[in-house]
Amino acid sequence: MSKVTAGATMSLDGFIADANHGGFEQLFAWYGAGDTELPSGLPDMPFKVSAASAEHIRQTKERLGVLVVGRRLYDMTNAWGGRHPMDKTTVVLTHQRPDDRPEDDDNFVFVTTGIEDAVAKAKEIAGDKDVGVNGGEIARQCFDAGLLDEVHVDLVPVFLGSGIPLLGQIRDAPAMLEGPISVTQGTGVTHLSYRVVRK
Amino acid sequence: MSKVTAGATMSLDGFIADANHGGFEQLFAWYGAGDTELPSGLPDMPFKVSAASAEHIRQTKERLGVLVVGRRLYDMTNAWGGRHPMDKTTVVLTHQRPDDRPEDDDNFVFVTTGIEDAVAKAKEIAGDKDVGVNGGEIARQCFDAGLLDEVHVDLVPVFLGSGIPLLGQIRDAPAMLEGPISVTQGTGVTHLSYRVVRK
Repeated sequence: MSKVTAGATMSLDGFIADANHGGFEQLFAWYGAGDTELPSGLPDMPFKVSAASAEHIRQTKERLGVLVVGRRLYDMTNAWGGRHPMDKTTVVLTHQRPDDRPEDDDNFVFVTTGIEDAVAKAKEIAGDKDVGVNGGEIARQCFDAGLLDEVHVDLVPVFLGSGIPLLGQIRDAPAMLEGPISVTQGTGVTHLSYRVVRK
Repeated sequence: MSKVTAGATMSLDGFIADANHGGFEQLFAWYGAGDTELPSGLPDMPFKVSAASAEHIRQTKERLGVLVVGRRLYDMTNAWGGRHPMDKTTVVLTHQRPDDRPEDDDNFVFVTTGIEDAVAKAKEIAGDKDVGVNGGEIARQCFDAGLLDEVHVDLVPVFLGSGIPLLGQIRDAPAMLEGPISVTQGTGVTHLSYRVVRK
């Protein structure tokens, strides 16, 4: 059955990005910490992760049918050069469709009417595959709306001190999860997944 | 060789306590999530943890020779009723020795001259055993002073949304760690340990 999962690489102190200190280098060091090549979306610059992480990512990718992201991530990555590196159709939640994309296509679908509609559209595209939600603010909106089934964390041994939290100020804190329902130890990263408990 | 380790039960979003929402119940749920009894420091009220967590705690306790805590934790717990539940001599870093404890004893030793002296005193007491540092503010001071060797996290699947961070605003962020050097999966908790990288 199709699940809605939020996934992120997260520091040991709970941040998925740190604009001030430039923590990206440390957060994503594990993408270069092994010797198993993975397509990165950039030609001639594959990721090189541990065999365990490569297998974990392969399985995740296989289960995912579609992605949901916020407009900020879409703009920040410059639309990933035209297609998301996970090679999936990506639903972008935005207030206004970008001028240079008058129509939806297999790469990007735009939804302007809120998180419920974005996830509904994503589920329609995903069929029996999973919907992957990325970006802290979008993940929090999904969590608060009761739309999230699982949280997948790639836990990285770095302290950023401050930054953008995985979910941030969720409405119904404290919120217990079940699990971890899976633990995979890579090099420089621990892949953990948890099941969201519906109240 | 004696190591200085900071240990804490931490939420998935990086908090060791949440005064506002009362997250303690969720953070420490794993202490009652199994069927292996552990002394809690309270008579007739043992913890009941999973067998894996019990063995993990037994090993940690065996390695620890002494604890270092801040005055806040000491006051908050009312001096743990007279002795720390880990059954170790506890060095308390404080500005002023409490009136009701004019002299150090096997239960509590007071240091008023800063974190370096507190850790030095603790190492003296610990001999070849480890020094355990508890409480976010004290752990951060140790980290910033380059006194910390390992960080031990009992990671709990709960989102608190806000609260007291494990280390908080460390001086030299971002700071990479090595590991996890050990991963133990309990029930409702993942025990992770990391090695601090000295710069």
